[in-house]
Amino acid sequence: MELTQIFGSIAAIMTTSAFVPQAIKIIKTKSTKDISLGMYIILTTGIFFWLIYGILLKQPPIIFANTIGFTLTFTILILKIKYRKTNGRD
Amino acid sequence: MELTQIFGSIAAIMTTSAFVPQAIKIIKTKSTKDISLGMYIILTTGIFFWLIYGILLKQPPIIFANTIGFTLTFTILILKIKYRKTNGRD
Repeated sequence: MELTQIFGSIAAIMTTSAFVPQAIKIIKTKSTKDISLGMYIILTTGIFFWLIYGILLKQPPIIFANTIGFTLTFTILILKIKYRKTNGRD
Repeated sequence: MELTQIFGSIAAIMTTSAFVPQAIKIIKTKSTKDISLGMYIILTTGIFFWLIYGILLKQPPIIFANTIGFTLTFTILILKIKYRKTNGRD
């Protein structure tokens, strides 16, 4: 495996799995008061664009990371909207 | 500008600027209770690896996005640790 691909793979695994503890935390606490709605709207959309970029560049680490990254950040976005009413505005 | 670079640039601007509303929210409310410490430790480290990957690939959108992304997520991580005492564990 090429050095570039090794770094890309480590980066992909870390920035993808990073959202797992946040999703678990929300599911456990049902609290999203401190989480920015704006952040997750912009982030989810931006990750979708990285996915297109990865497909055009034909770079597996970018495609892999952003497919899972999109799924996880979209989940957090939905949970933020779901618990918004009980947690107050934004 | 090549199509790949256009998608990469839009993605870079969005996933970079996404952390700005979260940082502003924390600075305003001084509350980080709902934010996962684990997420920001893993994310900041992972973004650092994306930066090395971008340098090796010589892809300006990856280098640009991850330099600013690292700065912002590292700021949120420091704020999370700073306000942790007053906001309870993790």
